[in-house]
Amino acid sequence: MSASRLVVIGLGLIGGSVALAARRADSGRSIRAVDPDASTLRFALERGIADEALTPDRALAAGWFRPGAADLVVLGTPVEATRTWLALLAEQGFDGIVTDTGSTKAPVIAAVPAGTPYRFVGGHPMAGSERSGITAASGDLFSGAYYILTPTSSTDMDAYRAVHAFAASLGARLVSVDAAVHDEAVATVSHVPHVAAAALVTLAGNRAEEGGSDLLRLAAGGFKDTTRVAAGSPGLWTGICLDNARALASGIAELETVLGTFRRAVEEGDAEAVHQWLEQAAERRRALPAQWVPATSALQELAVPITDQPGAVARVTTAVSRAGCNIEDIDIDHQSEDRAVLHLVLTDEGDVRALIDDLTTQGFAPTLRALEPPAPGQEAGR
Amino acid sequence: MSASRLVVIGLGLIGGSVALAARRADSGRSIRAVDPDASTLRFALERGIADEALTPDRALAAGWFRPGAADLVVLGTPVEATRTWLALLAEQGFDGIVTDTGSTKAPVIAAVPAGTPYRFVGGHPMAGSERSGITAASGDLFSGAYYILTPTSSTDMDAYRAVHAFAASLGARLVSVDAAVHDEAVATVSHVPHVAAAALVTLAGNRAEEGGSDLLRLAAGGFKDTTRVAAGSPGLWTGICLDNARALASGIAELETVLGTFRRAVEEGDAEAVHQWLEQAAERRRALPAQWVPATSALQELAVPITDQPGAVARVTTAVSRAGCNIEDIDIDHQSEDRAVLHLVLTDEGDVRALIDDLTTQGFAPTLRALEPPAPGQEAGR
Repeated sequence: MSASRLVVIGLGLIGGSVALAARRADSGRSIRAVDPDASTLRFALERGIADEALTPDRALAAGWFRPGAADLVVLGTPVEATRTWLALLAEQGFDGIVTDTGSTKAPVIAAVPAGTPYRFVGGHPMAGSERSGITAASGDLFSGAYYILTPTSSTDMDAYRAVHAFAASLGARLVSVDAAVHDEAVATVSHVPHVAAAALVTLAGNRAEEGGSDLLRLAAGGFKDTTRVAAGSPGLWTGICLDNARALASGIAELETVLGTFRRAVEEGDAEAVHQWLEQAAERRRALPAQWVPATSALQELAVPITDQPGAVARVTTAVSRAGCNIEDIDIDHQSEDRAVLHLVLTDEGDVRALIDDLTTQGFAPTLRALEPPAPGQEAGR
Repeated sequence: MSASRLVVIGLGLIGGSVALAARRADSGRSIRAVDPDASTLRFALERGIADEALTPDRALAAGWFRPGAADLVVLGTPVEATRTWLALLAEQGFDGIVTDTGSTKAPVIAAVPAGTPYRFVGGHPMAGSERSGITAASGDLFSGAYYILTPTSSTDMDAYRAVHAFAASLGARLVSVDAAVHDEAVATVSHVPHVAAAALVTLAGNRAEEGGSDLLRLAAGGFKDTTRVAAGSPGLWTGICLDNARALASGIAELETVLGTFRRAVEEGDAEAVHQWLEQAAERRRALPAQWVPATSALQELAVPITDQPGAVARVTTAVSRAGCNIEDIDIDHQSEDRAVLHLVLTDEGDVRALIDDLTTQGFAPTLRALEPPAPGQEAGR
């Protein structure tokens, strides 16, 4: 499945960037786009972002989602609209592959109707910008960014492979995570930080108003960095906050506790506690990788025979991510109705030994072999 | 006073950058540097950051701070060390001008001994970096950055003018603020944001450890922006937190309240409250000026006759900053022992009418005139 007939629903920053990056990855594919906003559709056609562009009603009427009408549907919509589309696509009898790009995964997965003819794989590109809308879209948005897939025990293996290959072709770095783990993780590294940034701006704004002075203009680069994300679309972020309400509220509560503990150390003048806390935070912050550099050598292939194991693809790929390894490429060799071999090309990151132990404990029998590095001058081909 | 004999004490990021920028502004001046660290002194001499460089003991023994030995001493030290130096300089009978660069001003001003022969002006360049130390120093650090001066009712007019001219020559944008207002303002726009960034890293780190998973690597650019400042020197920031403990603790407490209010709106699923809050924060964040662009035209000169008004320079310059105006240049025309005229060259920013009203209410009699823009090709000369 090469996703040569792609439909992108929702042409915002993410949907528009998916279309642009997909076109660049394969100039021969057909790209249809759906958006309720007429000027967005015009923009997409004028810039060649899509070959055809229709409003939802017209796209449904034109049969874009009838059986066999497309290979892959990418939902670039907010979670609430995604729920509606998952029901509509089932009603249309769509039988291709569907993936979404929402920042919360458990509620989306729960909204896939039972027995639907399409095969769904939840996805979340960890790329964004404080800008939004089709005019901010860029074919580079996913380059080097993490792109999370959340396979479940019922995820179809070939659908997973197809969405993995598609996302990798956008330049992203694939990670496979359980949906609930994902939702808590993004609350921690994205949603709570967004709220904290907005809270800092609120605090500064309130104080500037109270004091009648113009404190905010004294803000140096540090304040701007720290609060940059707070400029993001309030409409979009209201949806994100409410979709992931439970994990977000628990994260904010924990942040309040962390702040309160530190505040008391400051009030008590406890220099040692203050220093220790700041030092640990500085060390952890410095340990964050600056930027992903794609592995160009030392690739290894892990072959994992699968025999009727339920949810095998979810179990294997989330184990890979747990071990900190990265799947550069994935292939499935179907040997019979209930037997297949997963071929995972891994980069040199993470703990491959721990991964093999983990899989072995789970009843798999993985084998590892080193791959020849590509000859100089030879393109990696993706 | 042209600060042609400059001594910089404390060669960290700020002190080193002051020396580099001062050299660039006037290649003919002599620059002496003092630092307890021998390798820092060697680095400063090798790179031509200073002409002479000594440890504190040797600099004192060499008479660098005896009466008449220097024009300007810039303290690039943390607040605690600054307190010690303010006493030492008084003991030495130093009679030049002294300014500091600490991020808290009230405790520093309180540490200037009564009746000291030197004239002190508190300063705080709002420039920094998550890097620290002499090796991170740059002559560009202050370009376009706010540089706050905190004159008091006893600040000497000529000393203020000299420090203003010196800081402006480093490329900075001068703002004059009351010390207590400054300390609360920097808590709001710098110290609380630093603590919030460190708290976000702490939260993410704690959760990564609890879950045994490697959540932090999923962090996208937003998390990195939001937490960048948390990588700053823990030693330096421990001092800052404790020096400004009262304003910092009150800021953190208010941030906890803001977060708690928002958390409850999320828990209650109150979409309207969530949206309204995020929208206000986004608007305020977007309203922050991106970068200072120096005014090249529409300069005005405000002349303010001074007759025996106590603390005149503090009252006039803080009024200018309150009105959102910026002093491009300042000059003092001494007409007799107790009479002078302050000439302030103002850019086209802020509300000059409000400023004139404010000064008039305070008993001053300011007059305003437009200045000719410099002819094309003619250098601004600073």
